[in-house]
Amino acid sequence: MEKRFGGLKHILRAQDFSRKWIEEVLFPKTDEMEARTLKGDRGQPLFGKEMISLFAGESLRTRASFNIAMKRLGGEITFETEDVRKFSSMAKGESLEDTIITLNEYGADVIVLRYDEEGGAERAAAVSDIPIINAGDGGGQHPTQALLDLYVIQKHLNRIDGISIAMIGDLEKGRTVHSLAYLFGKFDGVKIYFVSPDNLKIKPDIKEYLNRHNVRFFETKDVREVASKVDVFYQTRTQTNLGTKPFDRADEKNGFTVINKQILDLAKKDSIILHPLPCTDEIVRSEVDPDRRAVYIKTKGDRMSQVKGGIYIRMAILWLLLF
Amino acid sequence: MEKRFGGLKHILRAQDFSRKWIEEVLFPKTDEMEARTLKGDRGQPLFGKEMISLFAGESLRTRASFNIAMKRLGGEITFETEDVRKFSSMAKGESLEDTIITLNEYGADVIVLRYDEEGGAERAAAVSDIPIINAGDGGGQHPTQALLDLYVIQKHLNRIDGISIAMIGDLEKGRTVHSLAYLFGKFDGVKIYFVSPDNLKIKPDIKEYLNRHNVRFFETKDVREVASKVDVFYQTRTQTNLGTKPFDRADEKNGFTVINKQILDLAKKDSIILHPLPCTDEIVRSEVDPDRRAVYIKTKGDRMSQVKGGIYIRMAILWLLLF
Amino acid sequence: MEKRFGGLKHILRAQDFSRKWIEEVLFPKTDEMEARTLKGDRGQPLFGKEMISLFAGESLRTRASFNIAMKRLGGEITFETEDVRKFSSMAKGESLEDTIITLNEYGADVIVLRYDEEGGAERAAAVSDIPIINAGDGGGQHPTQALLDLYVIQKHLNRIDGISIAMIGDLEKGRTVHSLAYLFGKFDGVKIYFVSPDNLKIKPDIKEYLNRHNVRFFETKDVREVASKVDVFYQTRTQTNLGTKPFDRADEKNGFTVINKQILDLAKKDSIILHPLPCTDEIVRSEVDPDRRAVYIKTKGDRMSQVKGGIYIRMAILWLLLF
Repeated sequence: MEKRFGGLKHILRAQDFSRKWIEEVLFPKTDEMEARTLKGDRGQPLFGKEMISLFAGESLRTRASFNIAMKRLGGEITFETEDVRKFSSMAKGESLEDTIITLNEYGADVIVLRYDEEGGAERAAAVSDIPIINAGDGGGQHPTQALLDLYVIQKHLNRIDGISIAMIGDLEKGRTVHSLAYLFGKFDGVKIYFVSPDNLKIKPDIKEYLNRHNVRFFETKDVREVASKVDVFYQTRTQTNLGTKPFDRADEKNGFTVINKQILDLAKKDSIILHPLPCTDEIVRSEVDPDRRAVYIKTKGDRMSQVKGGIYIRMAILWLLLF
Repeated sequence: MEKRFGGLKHILRAQDFSRKWIEEVLFPKTDEMEARTLKGDRGQPLFGKEMISLFAGESLRTRASFNIAMKRLGGEITFETEDVRKFSSMAKGESLEDTIITLNEYGADVIVLRYDEEGGAERAAAVSDIPIINAGDGGGQHPTQALLDLYVIQKHLNRIDGISIAMIGDLEKGRTVHSLAYLFGKFDGVKIYFVSPDNLKIKPDIKEYLNRHNVRFFETKDVREVASKVDVFYQTRTQTNLGTKPFDRADEKNGFTVINKQILDLAKKDSIILHPLPCTDEIVRSEVDPDRRAVYIKTKGDRMSQVKGGIYIRMAILWLLLF
Repeated sequence: MEKRFGGLKHILRAQDFSRKWIEEVLFPKTDEMEARTLKGDRGQPLFGKEMISLFAGESLRTRASFNIAMKRLGGEITFETEDVRKFSSMAKGESLEDTIITLNEYGADVIVLRYDEEGGAERAAAVSDIPIINAGDGGGQHPTQALLDLYVIQKHLNRIDGISIAMIGDLEKGRTVHSLAYLFGKFDGVKIYFVSPDNLKIKPDIKEYLNRHNVRFFETKDVREVASKVDVFYQTRTQTNLGTKPFDRADEKNGFTVINKQILDLAKKDSIILHPLPCTDEIVRSEVDPDRRAVYIKTKGDRMSQVKGGIYIRMAILWLLLF
């Protein structure tokens, strides 16, 4: 596995992946997973392999896509909890570390961990011989989401180098934005427009990383200012579950961070609109869903949706890790 | 599948089934499932098939029987949640529709949905290419329960046409009563006695349906009045989880809607007592359980229990849908 | 199965096992499970077998090890709930008995039940033809934990007869202590030191049992008094979830019931420290974990950890019960 993941034992942070591995190993395998799915291939390459799924914090896409990917490839989920904080002995005060060490004693081929505090996946990895996949750690990272985002961008724009992207919303706590920004550091000439209210700006450590990796970025509060310039809109929700207060996206005093008809009118014809979902009020769905550029969920025709990219990427990751 | 289900894509409402399909397709397949189970057949006709199980609202029988049926036939449950409201992104404000669309993108052969609001299954079906099975939607319907109820009646009485049935309890909110009443509209000469306190009477839309389908029905508050006339007692619980206040079933000012020794003494020798369960105080279990006519749970001898009918019906439904 | 379990139909209480069965059937099978695991054997002896897992009350080790054991041996978990109180119809007032009878109607080969009230497993067994495994019942028993504890003691000390053991902590509510104490009644010359604050002493019924079976026991409040005499330290946590108030383990007015460097210095070189886990503050982990005698979780070298013994014992139990 170590070779297949370019020396990585665990999947913790987006910046750990190499561009070479992403382009030459992961994306081709992901294409293969799409082809396999479209063919209805029922082979079981992961027969006998064991996954453990531990989630603290609600999840639909991440949990469902890892579970479905694992089982569709013939693997087994030997232990699973919908809330490791509530249903495991963590409710009695057990540490995350003891939880992970225990599961290591029992054995498995991979542990998928969603945790509700930044650094959870790294703490788990520090005591685990079993590969840990960080499925989101509080306001930290969500590396497999970033990989799928990148894959969907590549599919639609046929390149990553040189693209312009607006990353919009709660940039302080949105972990998918953090992970994706780190990945752009691996590519050339990406230009990022961070669009958020003043109190939800991107964190300094990410800016420093981008500076170090020669990624140009700009900050604004109004998506209308940049709408005509970007190839990708990456909208994100307000992380109310991590403590951000809801705010009016179209109220000028907060800036303007909603995507609606007005933005579509300004946007390039061949741009795409992404959103890691779930979506509440930050996209006016009735106006935007019918547009061909909206690819965050079900698409018109057979364009790949971001959601669909998610299952192919996770199938590919599990295959590379376990086969 | 469409042919097998008489043109139905989803299983949403009891009234959508045709009598012909019930009698000529479903019931024979259900008999086959019983025979297969008694033989201990371990074949895996549904190998490679994928079910998703989404429940909002507590369930034992419906969830367990669908899960067990699917796995016993060799199918896989690729994603499952015990509380889609709490553990999926619906907890972050995601709509039911986006949840279902997402799972469609991932793919599955069937989605079993218990929802806590009337109309949930229809909303899901409106955006789903994957067949949705309504496993209960708030105070709405529970069509597979109605099918199993009908199957068990047929097994014990050897007919549906012309039977007399008392449907007792919280008729306003009890969705199993609604679904079963709709099914009776497909048969001839069924006579229904609705027995409930004044404030929990059956809804007008169901009465209109029955009138349109020439099903005779009568309303009363006292099960003693009808006990000697009916072939089937269909007792139901007070839907406290949907807002009905608990009340004394034997307190005359509410009518009389408990089943006890007194009712057994009045009842026909070959009548049967059904209850979709769970049961709290609406059957005096110590008096009624030992009676041969009580078939809602474990029965004396090898009479088919209503509970057991539940797993055979769900095996049959999954087989017809997926094989 | 009855023969394999020495006449037992259900696994409810530690005192029901015979020494002969433990030594001649269970332990050799457990060794075989270890060997099988170390070899990476992927055979599926339990293919087609069905387990139901019902938990009320948080669990990591018990639930995970039964689930992993079952699936690793090729069996299936056909229905599972993380909180039978909350997600099944028990939330609507259904009794434990009706829940178990219902699942009997559906069928399974074994039901693993964690319940939050003493006697839960016995109530379940009273209405179940399917074997019930008591996976802990409130302040009652936890027989499979006791078996694994005994197995790990045997592995490290190469004997059970004649050992001295300190059982430390919340002896009133700690069900693992109860079950293990009952098992010692099957062996010769075991000496038990019960170490607890005055208000958390072992219950009279267990003392009577030990007297009847000629097991010598002593009670004290200070583990330092007995540390140099024992072969096994069996530390347990304060059962705050069952109502015990947290207390300072090293505050002299409560006695002294913590395990730390001071205890290690007093302890025999070849003694072992056990703990059924989870562990909060009753072991000073930074001081004790690095010690070779600490075998409750990950061990130095290839000594068997107590945690690891848990999965081998449960594999053996399921094999003996179902194969």
